[in-house]
Amino acid sequence: MPLNHQQPGPTATVRSARVVAARKLLRRAVRRSEGAFLADGPQAVREALRFHSPNGGIGADHPVYGDVGAKPTGGPAGRGGVVQVREVYVDAEHAERHADLLALADRAGVRVLPCEPKAIASLSEAVTPQGIVARCAVLDVPLDRVCAGAPRLLAVPVDVRDPGNLGTIIRCADASGADGVAILGDSVDLYNSKTVRATAGSIFHLPIAFEHDAAAAIGALRAAGLQVIATEGEASTDLDDFIDAGGLAAPTAWLFGNEAHGLADEVAALADVRLRIPIRGMAESLNLSTAAAICLFASARAHR
Amino acid sequence: MPLNHQQPGPTATVRSARVVAARKLLRRAVRRSEGAFLADGPQAVREALRFHSPNGGIGADHPVYGDVGAKPTGGPAGRGGVVQVREVYVDAEHAERHADLLALADRAGVRVLPCEPKAIASLSEAVTPQGIVARCAVLDVPLDRVCAGAPRLLAVPVDVRDPGNLGTIIRCADASGADGVAILGDSVDLYNSKTVRATAGSIFHLPIAFEHDAAAAIGALRAAGLQVIATEGEASTDLDDFIDAGGLAAPTAWLFGNEAHGLADEVAALADVRLRIPIRGMAESLNLSTAAAICLFASARAHR
Repeated sequence: MPLNHQQPGPTATVRSARVVAARKLLRRAVRRSEGAFLADGPQAVREALRFHSPNGGIGADHPVYGDVGAKPTGGPAGRGGVVQVREVYVDAEHAERHADLLALADRAGVRVLPCEPKAIASLSEAVTPQGIVARCAVLDVPLDRVCAGAPRLLAVPVDVRDPGNLGTIIRCADASGADGVAILGDSVDLYNSKTVRATAGSIFHLPIAFEHDAAAAIGALRAAGLQVIATEGEASTDLDDFIDAGGLAAPTAWLFGNEAHGLADEVAALADVRLRIPIRGMAESLNLSTAAAICLFASARAHR
Repeated sequence: MPLNHQQPGPTATVRSARVVAARKLLRRAVRRSEGAFLADGPQAVREALRFHSPNGGIGADHPVYGDVGAKPTGGPAGRGGVVQVREVYVDAEHAERHADLLALADRAGVRVLPCEPKAIASLSEAVTPQGIVARCAVLDVPLDRVCAGAPRLLAVPVDVRDPGNLGTIIRCADASGADGVAILGDSVDLYNSKTVRATAGSIFHLPIAFEHDAAAAIGALRAAGLQVIATEGEASTDLDDFIDAGGLAAPTAWLFGNEAHGLADEVAALADVRLRIPIRGMAESLNLSTAAAICLFASARAHR
């Protein structure tokens, strides 16, 4: 089918300037200096376009990626109002298969660059590239925006190193109805392609902040009226007992620690409550994202 | 430190016969014909040795891997009584670091083969090989063994394709205190190295069965006194409402479907109950292993 919205000129190759520029976004340092990242695959591209705002993107007050882009608008598109799709790359096969997405891009005034399949594949770190990629402006917001508006439920990964875990926690936070995510300490990059993929589009659904200083962030969460709960395998209080006692009725920020080491003692000590998920069999522990799912959905159930 | 238990002779290389034979177990067809698999890394090796039984291993009545090994003994070592470690491969650095594991192997009469680091790495599919690998007899049991003894909670993955998901479901089943796991349909191989790794040792903790015929297996689960619950994004009954109504008090087998397509209609139709996990945000769904964690821990809480 013809692509009415495509730019004139030949199909882009791996060596075309715009593809070369986009490919550099696979490196964190370039994502940081450009204030942009790649969303890979039709699901991510769809969610990006769904919540696209032409005035989206992050302002110069941004703590990590703050060197480019417009101020957040808080507009109607997206809970964060900060999603801005700058360009979509697609090969011919997937342009046909995802004509609805290209129509969406067209209506939004987002430029579409037809590419050779090899050019698209060069923008993807997936085992099986899916033929369509979007270049988006970074969308994280300052922590005070995640804390604004009396949030009832936040997910707070601290020093999380695995991109799949970070992305899955964001997806679970979205699915549990959480109001936002605050990523603390030395966590893996939100804009790593594996993180973005694991969010399954949820990166575009709820406000996400970075804050390197965990202690300061925990203070801000508490000031926003949230009880701060640390999840720890060794905690003396059991999640089930805490639920029975009505403890989850209050607005809650859940701290989830590093995969190998859990939460640092000095971080856990700042929490209002330290809870363990009861492990009933012979397993030593749960993996991080399943533990987060259990906690976030326990809160969602308590908040009904 | 000296390895008193090591065999005489030189350190094994990538070309040593026993290393070559072990490396072939990275292929499913060889695992099947040999009735053996590799457990990679200190955590897996420790759990294998902890539950090792010299008379373990699967009998000739085994539906999938049943061409070698002794009959299951049901002995005291391991809930399945079917764990048999045949050999441990270790390099010098990790022999020193994991001296406790080698002492355990020594006491159990399990042969330890000192290997060059490259030989160990050739037995691992991990990004970062961990220097110690065990060759184990396959340990899945017939479905009637998983159904024996009035089980109260089973995890039942159906057509699950991702090894990480299958392994994580087994780990969650263990951590929730489930009595066993029944893997139905065309699921990924339990003995895939990624599956084994994702179980974090739980593969050695609870009885696991394969049954290709999902309909027959669901009949057997029901005959064992279990209510069969299908998890489906489109189901009209909500997990939270079902919990409120006391529905999880009964012994339960949870069916978890394929990552992309969910449960086949004809399989879901055989369940007693079809439930959806309430998705409150803008996410379309949860990923499979986090959904399984929420369901299994909801059952564990209801069964307290």
